[in-house]
Amino acid sequence: MLVLSSRDIESVISYEEMIEAIERAYVIYEEGKYYMPDRFHVDYKNKTLLYMPCFLDDVFGTKILTVFPENVEKKIPSLDGLMLLNDFETGKPTCLMDGKILTALRTGAVGGVGIKYTTPEDVKTVGLIGAGVQGFYQVLYACKVRNFKKVYIFDEYVKDLTDFVDRLRKVIPTDVEIIICKSSEDLVRRSDVVITATTATEPTMPNSTELLRGKHFIGIGSYKPTMREYPDALSSLVEDVYIDADIALEETGDLIQPIAAGLLKNSQVKRISKLIASGGEIKDLEHKTTFFKTVGIAIFDIVAANAIYKKAVEAEVGYLLD
Amino acid sequence: MLVLSSRDIESVISYEEMIEAIERAYVIYEEGKYYMPDRFHVDYKNKTLLYMPCFLDDVFGTKILTVFPENVEKKIPSLDGLMLLNDFETGKPTCLMDGKILTALRTGAVGGVGIKYTTPEDVKTVGLIGAGVQGFYQVLYACKVRNFKKVYIFDEYVKDLTDFVDRLRKVIPTDVEIIICKSSEDLVRRSDVVITATTATEPTMPNSTELLRGKHFIGIGSYKPTMREYPDALSSLVEDVYIDADIALEETGDLIQPIAAGLLKNSQVKRISKLIASGGEIKDLEHKTTFFKTVGIAIFDIVAANAIYKKAVEAEVGYLLD
Repeated sequence: MLVLSSRDIESVISYEEMIEAIERAYVIYEEGKYYMPDRFHVDYKNKTLLYMPCFLDDVFGTKILTVFPENVEKKIPSLDGLMLLNDFETGKPTCLMDGKILTALRTGAVGGVGIKYTTPEDVKTVGLIGAGVQGFYQVLYACKVRNFKKVYIFDEYVKDLTDFVDRLRKVIPTDVEIIICKSSEDLVRRSDVVITATTATEPTMPNSTELLRGKHFIGIGSYKPTMREYPDALSSLVEDVYIDADIALEETGDLIQPIAAGLLKNSQVKRISKLIASGGEIKDLEHKTTFFKTVGIAIFDIVAANAIYKKAVEAEVGYLLD
Repeated sequence: MLVLSSRDIESVISYEEMIEAIERAYVIYEEGKYYMPDRFHVDYKNKTLLYMPCFLDDVFGTKILTVFPENVEKKIPSLDGLMLLNDFETGKPTCLMDGKILTALRTGAVGGVGIKYTTPEDVKTVGLIGAGVQGFYQVLYACKVRNFKKVYIFDEYVKDLTDFVDRLRKVIPTDVEIIICKSSEDLVRRSDVVITATTATEPTMPNSTELLRGKHFIGIGSYKPTMREYPDALSSLVEDVYIDADIALEETGDLIQPIAAGLLKNSQVKRISKLIASGGEIKDLEHKTTFFKTVGIAIFDIVAANAIYKKAVEAEVGYLLD
């Protein structure tokens, strides 16, 4: 079994390959060529252990995550975990890799693919609300799929973003300017594309159609019905909402709540995978307000992890156990 | 996270420490100081993926197993897997180790502890029915807890046991004689203690009270209601059956079938953990026919794995990921 650290992972896979992996995952999802059982979860003393298995045609595996909300007080990420790949024919574990960086990279790539398909090619400014680990990789991938000139950042809780900005500067093109915003309203006003990557349970921006009109929104947080990043105003502006998987309709408050309130119709919610698998595109993007919402599915993990594993074998990177 | 190969595991933990770990696990089980959810399993195209989580007071973890029955045709073990340990306070993965050798060692130790508590101290001969991976470690641990002078071996399917015997000779005391038997009847007749480690669905020995009387039986196989290693005659000879966990009453055909047939009473089935936790012993062992039956529980895995992990940290053995 090959064991890959976060550094190993980042050293073998390019951002472009990660984006390709996610596009491939969408085609597999659209074609139904997978078996993805419901997540298993164990809850014990405010600790959650999650097992997310997925079978493809030629590989299967499990992402194993721990969710410890109390870690936040200890300044430790609440999420930790591993990704395990198994040989499809024998079950033998073939690869084990850091699950935190895999999750961050694949979620970054999911956001990037979202931008690629739901925003015009000539967008120049991107805003990030929520400067955490996920947000970091969101900006990184955003800058891979579009030639952004300015990155705006706002975080309601982290007041000193120096370290975040310093790290970001090292990985995005040198000509991109990074600007800290004093409010989410300011950020949304100045950004063509807005990415939200928070754990908010209330909208992260003002409920104003005037403010939101013509912008392109990428929703990364809100993976529970009680979580929400977007105000009602967004529902009245969008023609359709693009989602990464049907399960989003059961998981995110950003769909469940406006649908329950009658502000959004089920028929307006569309799978981005259909667009990707058919090679289609959204027409007249530059005149539309768009919203791409991802909740994440195990297919992303397994396809991305398998791509990383193959690259690591090729590059002879990692630690071979036994 | 520390990654331990099968060699790492065997190099850091002694048989005595493994036996102590199992005895500690029994005390934890008897005192109820654990949380052990039901196993999760995913079945897909005749492949099974099992997650066996367990929480103790200071550590938690999961054994992840694959069961691929078709592997047998390919001469590959049908079982493979890994054991993951997590930090109790943060959820962080702390250790990952080979699950095959962990399972073999802890099952060996469970058998050894069974022998320690359910057989007289002066037994001289042990017989093994089923010369597979589990059987190998059963004999190894048996020879740690009793001064056996002769080991008898019988396997209905493996006709050439040369390799098995050669490997065994290297790990058991040099004065122990190893003898291959032509039948299970012959083996039982010559053995004071009989260990069965098969995947049999029919009894592995003749249904004869005369043959079985006064012997001490250790049942390792039969982990499903349809599996059975012992004939009805055994039920009529034993005063009590000792089990490793209450779940045995729902899992093994070696209890379910004789109880259903009215040959064994529920009240005759006792937890060995009660004996171990209370420091008690079975009286008049040398005049009794005894039966210890194990089905295995996740507490064994987590306690044994944690002991191995601590020893590996101490000895600075293993590969440190990130």
